[in-house]
Amino acid sequence: MKIESVDFFYLAIPDVKPIGDGSQDALLVRVRAGDYEGWGECEAAPLVSIASFICPMSHSACRPVKDGVLGQTLDTPQDIRRINALVRRLSFDLLQADHTLSGIDCALWDLLGKRYGEPVYKLLGYDRAYRKVAYASQLFGDTPDLTYEKALSVSNAGFRAAKFGWGPYGEGSVEDDAAHVLAARSGLGPDIQLLVDAGTIWGDDVEAALARIPALRQQGAVWLEEPFATGALNAYSTLAREAGPVALAGGEGAHTPDQAKHMIDYGGIGFVQIDAGRIGGITSAYEVAQYAVQRGITYVNHTFTTPLALSASLQPYAGIESSRLCEYPVESSEMARALTYEQIRIDGNGCVIVPDRPGLGMSLNLDTIRRYEQKVEIIVNGLTLFSSTE
Amino acid sequence: MKIESVDFFYLAIPDVKPIGDGSQDALLVRVRAGDYEGWGECEAAPLVSIASFICPMSHSACRPVKDGVLGQTLDTPQDIRRINALVRRLSFDLLQADHTLSGIDCALWDLLGKRYGEPVYKLLGYDRAYRKVAYASQLFGDTPDLTYEKALSVSNAGFRAAKFGWGPYGEGSVEDDAAHVLAARSGLGPDIQLLVDAGTIWGDDVEAALARIPALRQQGAVWLEEPFATGALNAYSTLAREAGPVALAGGEGAHTPDQAKHMIDYGGIGFVQIDAGRIGGITSAYEVAQYAVQRGITYVNHTFTTPLALSASLQPYAGIESSRLCEYPVESSEMARALTYEQIRIDGNGCVIVPDRPGLGMSLNLDTIRRYEQKVEIIVNGLTLFSSTE
Repeated sequence: MKIESVDFFYLAIPDVKPIGDGSQDALLVRVRAGDYEGWGECEAAPLVSIASFICPMSHSACRPVKDGVLGQTLDTPQDIRRINALVRRLSFDLLQADHTLSGIDCALWDLLGKRYGEPVYKLLGYDRAYRKVAYASQLFGDTPDLTYEKALSVSNAGFRAAKFGWGPYGEGSVEDDAAHVLAARSGLGPDIQLLVDAGTIWGDDVEAALARIPALRQQGAVWLEEPFATGALNAYSTLAREAGPVALAGGEGAHTPDQAKHMIDYGGIGFVQIDAGRIGGITSAYEVAQYAVQRGITYVNHTFTTPLALSASLQPYAGIESSRLCEYPVESSEMARALTYEQIRIDGNGCVIVPDRPGLGMSLNLDTIRRYEQKVEIIVNGLTLFSSTE
Repeated sequence: MKIESVDFFYLAIPDVKPIGDGSQDALLVRVRAGDYEGWGECEAAPLVSIASFICPMSHSACRPVKDGVLGQTLDTPQDIRRINALVRRLSFDLLQADHTLSGIDCALWDLLGKRYGEPVYKLLGYDRAYRKVAYASQLFGDTPDLTYEKALSVSNAGFRAAKFGWGPYGEGSVEDDAAHVLAARSGLGPDIQLLVDAGTIWGDDVEAALARIPALRQQGAVWLEEPFATGALNAYSTLAREAGPVALAGGEGAHTPDQAKHMIDYGGIGFVQIDAGRIGGITSAYEVAQYAVQRGITYVNHTFTTPLALSASLQPYAGIESSRLCEYPVESSEMARALTYEQIRIDGNGCVIVPDRPGLGMSLNLDTIRRYEQKVEIIVNGLTLFSSTE
């Protein structure tokens, strides 16, 4: 088969707010080849990612992403790896290209899975998919009382792990943050795993992060996520030496496998969190998952958007039994929840069931796409380079 | 002063070719505040960088670059640093933002230099600017004979250092590459410093790079540049241990100071090459220059575009005497050469003279801008988010 078309659908809710909720918009990618189509999602700024697919060439290493995709042969997983390498080479100096590639790569795996009637994790070489303990992923409440209510509600819903992040955490005093962590633990009770996400709030300020460790230790937090930006390796490794038994988690900002490997090799993290919609897709995420296993580090998905993205994020480590946790969005927008006919289900033990259907196993609700689609037009010198016309 | 406007001008020559010449297009940024205006340049895909300035917000950490710039107070260098930090925080998940910020940051320094009547390097805290040995930067010839001719011509032009890169290098056999390096040395004669740029051709294949070292050693090459992609730290450090006395050079792909520091800390490079038009601007480049001095590493600019970009790339290390080399484009397009009324001059010793005029010391030829400008229009849901109307 040849790749005949790559189409982008930019969805957004009517009133996007400046809150840490990544499900307020979405960039969907549809790839067609032969009699098949596959769907993927970029966890990325939609307009910018579209522009990087169709922009005019700047020079030999700064070409639009389409140059490495359209017309390419697609018959085997090896073809997907070849297309990945080609895009990275042709669009080497186009920074946004990795985010655009991410959704395309997921769509290519979905397409190939449909063609062969196999779930993606099988095409990747895994014999089976292990169920993952879903951790309910949500923002801290604005007050400790609201955090407590949220914790109680995920506990009542049967989750075995829960993460609280962003919101007020790190914005106020050490005592304020401790009160939120205590409230989360009180609501969850003693047995549910507690994870905390600082959303890179401390830049590279190790002291600020270190001051929060005693409260996390006292409440038995499994990890502190993203105290610093993805690349602040020295800050990560310094904190990691002091924070035990609270492990550090990070890596969601990585847009290449190398960057995630650096977090493992030089950052001292215990959990590497990969967003398949940012790192270059399932191909790159799988590469990191294999590397993590070699290095004895636990791989976790990063997902804060749609069920389609969640399925894509599960495939790269579905067959790795020792990586047990799975980020499971519980506060995503109605748009995100209505995108697919299927949902990713949770069993009676609070575990995520990886879809066992061909490809990513999700079928798209075209009405949802039509309802939320943002119409984009990009024109250079009178020539329309992109138009959402469907 | 408040930042009142940020305007983008996307220039391109009529026929952009898939060759390693970054001067075929340009993205200029003009910032206005109070009675002043400053100019900068993004070394980046123009259309995509424009889109990242004006795109709709996705969530709290994925906002358009404009949110961190427009309306901000601009009176001191500290304001520029604050604006940098703000953009990096608000546009954290917008990958292209670092490239867009780069040109804006250069324009902010230019503007502030004009306001205070000082060259940017003085605002950065340097007492004086040292002249830098210009290395003539050019592509390898298609054949060794053509490489020889190019080498002869830069030798005749009085350069004391020359770099050859891209083109056929690394595409053919080890012997082919050795023939090019020999041809370059023959044309240059024994006294001119020879630098070689592999343009990331070997991915992370250490063996392939290692096979080229004997010829480089034999011809006394000072450095081998970018054998691998920016983030391939393990490959860099492995090769660095084997390649002496040929040093490794790299870092041009870094879009944050952290990434450049990783090349120094974990990649074993001897020369860190920073493009102020990619890493976030002069602010970020200066941070890396100071770090390089601390670590005993030589800082070098990366510039392959216009005299405006060259001036911006010189400021961050103008006052560091021990970092003596300067990349000096000798094959840039007529458009790039005609962009500014002033050129960056070379003295009788083959040394670059850092402009001693206010700001970046370059005035723009608006006729050149008008002649080469590409008209861009970006529309979302019928609303024009960007239009090049001047």
